[in-house]
Amino acid sequence: MSAYSELESRFHRLYALRNAAGVLQWDMATMMPPGGAAARAEQSAALQVVCHGVLADPAVGDLLDQAEGERANLDEWQHANLGDMRRQWVHATGLDARLVEALSKAGSTCEQIWRKARPAADFAMVKPALAALLTLVREAAQAKAAKLGCSPYDALLDEYEPGGRSAEIDRVFDDLAAFLPGFRDRVLAHQAARPAPVKPAGPFPIEKQRALGEKLMQVLGFEFEHGRLDISLHPFCGGVPDDVRITTRYNEDDFTQAMMAVIHETGHALYERGLPPDWRHQPVGQPRGMSIHESQSLLMEMQASRSRQFIAFVAPLARAAFGGSGPAWEEDNLHRLYTRVKPDFIRVDADEVTYPAHVILRYRLERALIAGDMTVDDLPAAWNAGMKELLGIVPPSDREGCLQDIHWYDGAWGYFPTYTLGAMTAAQLFDAACRAKPEIPQAIGKGDFTPLLAWLRAHVHGHGSRLPNRELLTQATGRPLDPAVFKRHLETRYLS
Amino acid sequence: MSAYSELESRFHRLYALRNAAGVLQWDMATMMPPGGAAARAEQSAALQVVCHGVLADPAVGDLLDQAEGERANLDEWQHANLGDMRRQWVHATGLDARLVEALSKAGSTCEQIWRKARPAADFAMVKPALAALLTLVREAAQAKAAKLGCSPYDALLDEYEPGGRSAEIDRVFDDLAAFLPGFRDRVLAHQAARPAPVKPAGPFPIEKQRALGEKLMQVLGFEFEHGRLDISLHPFCGGVPDDVRITTRYNEDDFTQAMMAVIHETGHALYERGLPPDWRHQPVGQPRGMSIHESQSLLMEMQASRSRQFIAFVAPLARAAFGGSGPAWEEDNLHRLYTRVKPDFIRVDADEVTYPAHVILRYRLERALIAGDMTVDDLPAAWNAGMKELLGIVPPSDREGCLQDIHWYDGAWGYFPTYTLGAMTAAQLFDAACRAKPEIPQAIGKGDFTPLLAWLRAHVHGHGSRLPNRELLTQATGRPLDPAVFKRHLETRYLS
Repeated sequence: MSAYSELESRFHRLYALRNAAGVLQWDMATMMPPGGAAARAEQSAALQVVCHGVLADPAVGDLLDQAEGERANLDEWQHANLGDMRRQWVHATGLDARLVEALSKAGSTCEQIWRKARPAADFAMVKPALAALLTLVREAAQAKAAKLGCSPYDALLDEYEPGGRSAEIDRVFDDLAAFLPGFRDRVLAHQAARPAPVKPAGPFPIEKQRALGEKLMQVLGFEFEHGRLDISLHPFCGGVPDDVRITTRYNEDDFTQAMMAVIHETGHALYERGLPPDWRHQPVGQPRGMSIHESQSLLMEMQASRSRQFIAFVAPLARAAFGGSGPAWEEDNLHRLYTRVKPDFIRVDADEVTYPAHVILRYRLERALIAGDMTVDDLPAAWNAGMKELLGIVPPSDREGCLQDIHWYDGAWGYFPTYTLGAMTAAQLFDAACRAKPEIPQAIGKGDFTPLLAWLRAHVHGHGSRLPNRELLTQATGRPLDPAVFKRHLETRYLS
Repeated sequence: MSAYSELESRFHRLYALRNAAGVLQWDMATMMPPGGAAARAEQSAALQVVCHGVLADPAVGDLLDQAEGERANLDEWQHANLGDMRRQWVHATGLDARLVEALSKAGSTCEQIWRKARPAADFAMVKPALAALLTLVREAAQAKAAKLGCSPYDALLDEYEPGGRSAEIDRVFDDLAAFLPGFRDRVLAHQAARPAPVKPAGPFPIEKQRALGEKLMQVLGFEFEHGRLDISLHPFCGGVPDDVRITTRYNEDDFTQAMMAVIHETGHALYERGLPPDWRHQPVGQPRGMSIHESQSLLMEMQASRSRQFIAFVAPLARAAFGGSGPAWEEDNLHRLYTRVKPDFIRVDADEVTYPAHVILRYRLERALIAGDMTVDDLPAAWNAGMKELLGIVPPSDREGCLQDIHWYDGAWGYFPTYTLGAMTAAQLFDAACRAKPEIPQAIGKGDFTPLLAWLRAHVHGHGSRLPNRELLTQATGRPLDPAVFKRHLETRYLS
């Protein structure tokens, strides 16, 4: 067996073990009774140690060296696969098993405390666990930074956004940060001159919301033979391409949130399902990183489904689902509702115009925390000051402030910027898709996502991780990430 | 660190990894969409290989030898723990990683085909996969037999029933087989002289059945903070002591089956939950084997809940749950229904009197198949001949015959006898519990399972695997397994 084949076989096994860990994560968020948390934390930590061991095995380093010597025998996919193997190996060997296990357990512990601290708006309750976790995260960041030859923050970012660097993020975020406040004020003024949208009156039984969500999942192209829709506190997409698990949460007074959350997660699911079947078990067949992943959910949600065309398609379905009638259920009103801009405290409820400000705040804070320029003691005050600066509002308590997101509390540092990179990428991809296939908006208006999905399969999903991010976007859209497309999208939607 | 401590730490990790595999199994049976099967089979196989590797690591053999030299430093629990570690190690080192993986994959494959072959009553469809699986199972049995110094069949049995041997099973099964046919005929005659039970008329909506089941789970002592009730094709109990997952299936025309299945699985769940908290992560703190496990479910179902006292308690609850009234809902009728004897084809639907015949049939066939005295080609005819001999009836098709049970098709060979060993053990334990605490039957009649559960916790659950089976039963009841107690129970219930 060649060194390369031996590596493929090891990475195939690693893929299966990571997916097993993914099932445990999904179950924890959707099914697990509260008393199972401690046992689950042990299971997850044990699996992470095993995965780390498979990857950090010294034999893998030797095999990588040998396989790189055999490159002439590899085709383009194998070649890219080998590069991604090396990247994963570098990440893994940056940490020892002790740190992997400690991080997993500290993340589980901190998350469990956060689940109590958030509703109680009690940052002090979770502060010691967060500080302990941050200490380990910083240790990991520094260890990886030495291996990757970048800053500790970029070493964390690189896990979610392969090749991503703060210098590049600063370039596009600074551009946005300069544009958004003025733009937001113009939108608010423009909006004030139009009738305020009216919320359809509930209650909206969960079963009916679920049925509508499942119908829309099918419209978008979701296959229930290969996936499920469930409930969790925060919507997410888990599972594997042949068994994609998406979740949402329901509010019986407002169907519009769950409906759009389901569409968002379906975008993630379609990406997973469209990964190249022959390469899924290998690094090169896996998602290209979190900004591309997020671009696929935001493309479905923000670009396709908040469009006039889609709202026209969905309005009668929503009326039929809930027996709604009257002005609140009219297409125009629903479109105004789904495109309303309102600076507010909670990121996950934010509109497309103010969302980047939430992300920029978190990006700045996590960089400072990782760099050691501030500590968790400073976090609540720094959060509130940042909200004041970026959005002009101050949260009434830490529940609506620095306690709102799970990410830091379960150990995901360096993740936040991918949301806004994803939003910009989504705008750029949708723009390119509609140029290539001008029939897409009309098809969406008829509930036909086939042309859009076909374009995405060909230009994004089917590539897996074969191309670097920048190259993928350039091949698909003709240029690397360009904030101008996103800004043009916002202007078109919110000022016309 | 002493060799013993090092072993504890390795077995703790193994426990977490096996439990992770258990979550995957539960999910496969309850949540997984059909298209996820192939990916799940890979995940499960990868995890089994990992677990096998942790256990079969040559270092474990050395540590066991060293720890056995340090025995003077160990207390009674540690001593027993070391014995169980050795036993698990012997089982694991009997097989190499290739065989472990091949068995796991062949079991998954065969099970998936069986899921189609059974409804189609098409044994030929699954025969090649079953033959392939059986070849591997026999290979494993022979390899383990050499290590354990017993027959290949006993080597398989030993996994489910530590220390169990066919010679002992033959003794009690032959005793039963001599008793049961004549007894069954007496029961049928006795039954014919009484009014036939009437089934309450449905439909019984699943949600109401679930609510009644959950109420009864609480009556028995199930804690929903530490467990769940879900739906699967076959009821089972999975999970871990702090997160016990039981399942049932619902028939909208008949609530009585699901109700009793829930009680049965709750018996399993209470055993898991009652395992010694300080030792759960170690071999000695785990269930003592499948006959004891089954005794705990059958004790709750057959001994406690099909008693006159419990039926008197549950009848008004069932009437209230479904708005039932009239003769079919009377306590007497429900008791006759729950103790009706009727020779039939399906083991899982069988009554307590005919059930052992189903098990004896399977035990004889699987011994012959493992010994190589027959092949899967012979199975359908041998099955039907055995049914004719033991129960006097012949299945109309293989769906009601040799295709009915999942066990052989997913690789569980040597498991069947534990059902009837469990039934006998249940009778003996319940008899001892009621002698020790004569208030138990009356308490059950009031829906108070506290005295019974306290006795079980003290005499069975809390011991984990500390004592050999025979010793556990002798300490709890004053003697080893004695078919006379089971026969007396049957005579009292079915002939008086």
